[in-house]
Amino acid sequence: MKALNPATNQPIEPDFAFGGLAEVHRAATLADDAFDSYSHTSLTARAQFLERIADHLDAARKELAARASLEVGLPEAQLEAEAAKAGVQFRQFADVVRKGRFLQLSIDPALPERQPRPRMDHRLQKMAIGPVAIFGASNFPISYSVAGGDTASALAAGATVIVKAHNAHPGASEIQARVIRDAVRDSGFHEGVFSMLRGSGNAIGEALVEHPLIRAVTFTGSEAGGMALYRRAQLRPDPIPVFTEMTSVNPAFVLPSAQQSRGAAIGDGFGERMLVNVGQACLKPAILVGVQGEGFDVLRRALIKRIGEAPARTMLTPGIHASYVRGLDKLESAGAHRIAEGGEPNASLDGQSMLWEVDGAEFLANPVLADEVFGPSALLVKADNAEELLAIARALRGQLSATMHLEPEDMPLARRLLPQLERRTGRVVVNAFSHPQEVSFASIHGGPFPATSDSRFTSVGMTSIERFLRPVSYQGFPDALLPEPLREANPLGIPRLVDGQ
Amino acid sequence: MKALNPATNQPIEPDFAFGGLAEVHRAATLADDAFDSYSHTSLTARAQFLERIADHLDAARKELAARASLEVGLPEAQLEAEAAKAGVQFRQFADVVRKGRFLQLSIDPALPERQPRPRMDHRLQKMAIGPVAIFGASNFPISYSVAGGDTASALAAGATVIVKAHNAHPGASEIQARVIRDAVRDSGFHEGVFSMLRGSGNAIGEALVEHPLIRAVTFTGSEAGGMALYRRAQLRPDPIPVFTEMTSVNPAFVLPSAQQSRGAAIGDGFGERMLVNVGQACLKPAILVGVQGEGFDVLRRALIKRIGEAPARTMLTPGIHASYVRGLDKLESAGAHRIAEGGEPNASLDGQSMLWEVDGAEFLANPVLADEVFGPSALLVKADNAEELLAIARALRGQLSATMHLEPEDMPLARRLLPQLERRTGRVVVNAFSHPQEVSFASIHGGPFPATSDSRFTSVGMTSIERFLRPVSYQGFPDALLPEPLREANPLGIPRLVDGQ
Repeated sequence: MKALNPATNQPIEPDFAFGGLAEVHRAATLADDAFDSYSHTSLTARAQFLERIADHLDAARKELAARASLEVGLPEAQLEAEAAKAGVQFRQFADVVRKGRFLQLSIDPALPERQPRPRMDHRLQKMAIGPVAIFGASNFPISYSVAGGDTASALAAGATVIVKAHNAHPGASEIQARVIRDAVRDSGFHEGVFSMLRGSGNAIGEALVEHPLIRAVTFTGSEAGGMALYRRAQLRPDPIPVFTEMTSVNPAFVLPSAQQSRGAAIGDGFGERMLVNVGQACLKPAILVGVQGEGFDVLRRALIKRIGEAPARTMLTPGIHASYVRGLDKLESAGAHRIAEGGEPNASLDGQSMLWEVDGAEFLANPVLADEVFGPSALLVKADNAEELLAIARALRGQLSATMHLEPEDMPLARRLLPQLERRTGRVVVNAFSHPQEVSFASIHGGPFPATSDSRFTSVGMTSIERFLRPVSYQGFPDALLPEPLREANPLGIPRLVDGQ
Repeated sequence: MKALNPATNQPIEPDFAFGGLAEVHRAATLADDAFDSYSHTSLTARAQFLERIADHLDAARKELAARASLEVGLPEAQLEAEAAKAGVQFRQFADVVRKGRFLQLSIDPALPERQPRPRMDHRLQKMAIGPVAIFGASNFPISYSVAGGDTASALAAGATVIVKAHNAHPGASEIQARVIRDAVRDSGFHEGVFSMLRGSGNAIGEALVEHPLIRAVTFTGSEAGGMALYRRAQLRPDPIPVFTEMTSVNPAFVLPSAQQSRGAAIGDGFGERMLVNVGQACLKPAILVGVQGEGFDVLRRALIKRIGEAPARTMLTPGIHASYVRGLDKLESAGAHRIAEGGEPNASLDGQSMLWEVDGAEFLANPVLADEVFGPSALLVKADNAEELLAIARALRGQLSATMHLEPEDMPLARRLLPQLERRTGRVVVNAFSHPQEVSFASIHGGPFPATSDSRFTSVGMTSIERFLRPVSYQGFPDALLPEPLREANPLGIPRLVDGQ
């Protein structure tokens, strides 16, 4: 295959080869062969490996951003920043590995005098689940792709990794794979610690999630794609965990006092965030809910202005562009009223920005209106009153995030809205938008279905490592046989719970 | 329906009514209605509620043990101990709730000066996943049933609970449900916090896992039963997490020096643990692997003696008895050699103890020999040498537990065996057997498939609460709108990570 330049709709050199089922089997076998040694590397060696990846990523940053820009049609400067962020992510996980808290060490000491029977010594640590298959996203060709957060967190956990590369950016994928392979080699690790596969159609990905040696899967992309992989993995004789990050409209709720006092700023800010990455972001705020009145009209005008001034820009792939156009048709068919449109497209894959409006009753009557349209489109929902705004919150499916815009006078309503949002989203934001996403300890990129396939985990941030860890308890062990972090003298000095304290 | 007394194979009064689909819907709707208030109860109120359940359980202990003994054919004293353990479990979870560490509070403070853009304040807590459906086990009619660990951990998490009662002990189930309902009422909570359903066949359980308002499922029982529910839940339009604890043979590996010096004690100890609960325990050690030689012969004689002296005893249900008989036939067909049998059955549901033997090559050639036979049967595997013992470990599927019997001279072999066991089991025990199970922080009752459907969780112990918790991140919140545990002044005094430290 060749990559496609979406700005020109022309192929880019060079050719990339596809793998087949033999390559899937070989990669899985290598990942399994490498697992025992890699999962038992010292924390120091593993942290150094992650830092080596970061170093190599930094060194390749310009080359990577230039190639990615050709392949996905986003500005080179933005992609350099994304590559820098990917490097930071590996360094953050190196720090997580070194500090060792992710091992969740826990000791219940022996109680030889306990009645009616003594308690033996129990010690727990987390260890990696096994080889992990990772399906990268199309829209962030670095930070959610081959050298993205899934790979960083899985390698940090001690899992071996096979990435199925996204065909939207084969050249950028190749550079990232080279960077990681170089770090594997420089670290003296088994070559099976990391592999990357490329394939046409779905066969290679399906074979990967069905391979008996694969123990977990992550995916970032559409609900249809994610669910197809999810269901396939669940129908294995031995189902495996699949974490899919799929779809979210990241609703913004503007409470009455905030709308009254800051309507224009909120409308303009929403429009700005909505347009980031040509609206091709999982955290794009796609639905804004306000309450009819003077503040709403001000907000609406600001938003119309912002969308109306937006030039059409290149979308990621022909498929995504076509799907965007279908999504706009679907909104129109569902009764959404078009109230603003951005500049006309100049090229075949340009996405034109669109703003739609419905009232609360229309929104509640047409669940299709709450579906994600991937691209620069957003929907304004005018609720009659606060009760209808709450009803709209209750009607939403699971989301990655939701935002509330509020002033002190809005607190009583915010207190009623919050439990609805807590139950439906992984992150609730006050007086800001949910994009961008922090990569930190207390931030979550997850949420109830269909935002993800398992609301108990996150795919971004330091706790995303938990997707790939399982507990092992060691009972009655002689000190010399215990894993180093659990030995009595605590040679690694990692914090450990004793009887849960 | 009436309960069946397995000792006499006669029905016991009174009649119990079955629910149908209407009851499933009503219970799910109530559980959902109760969720917002119950999941937001203060930690103190929730801990007091769990302690009330423990108090009521203690008060009902004799009545409960007497009824359970009639229904499952186990001694009343043993069931009194089980009821006491169930009460302790609720108190342990009350303590977990009060201390609040399960909330996994985490704060990333605002960094207003950070470049290129400031970081907003992020605060994370865990909250309950939603209404949970629990399928209790047949073999521990209290501690793995209506008032068992699943219910205790789910209620501790702040989830509302619907138990599908096991028809093997309807009377004992009814007493436990009454105890919990009384505590709900005494706590002034919504009645939907807890419901119990009874039904004939599988329809009611299937409807429960398919109900749109149910957000998670737990199950303890057979692989066939567990996987049927698992697959049904995964085929929902919105799949939900299902934790099934299914099957394990809990292999014991006797290393050469230990076998040489303590063969008789190990053989006798294995036999004793194998016979607990008439072999009807998920932690029954069912396979003992030793290395041929003099020590093996001593171990073998001790085990034959112990099994040979065991009287036949009442099994739990006609179905389990029939399945046990079929399991013995399967072992025989697979080429296992019968080397000891216990006393003859006196009643129709009596289970006769059996000991089988194969050599290592036979074991490796017949995967069926590694399947669980639920009941008082065990298999002795004579490996030719240490390498074959390691090959046997590598051939095993996922287990709840495995044990190693070793002396200092066995350490080199133990170091080679341990990574195989870590990868295949949730708990590794040295110089003891894996039954009984501690209910503590560092103990795990879980493991890779088919021991459970998700190796990342445990169904027993304090961390079993994690099955029902999901993270929510609060970004840029005014202090007054934050959940109490996350407020700046830390009014509850619960430990919180700051930037992961």
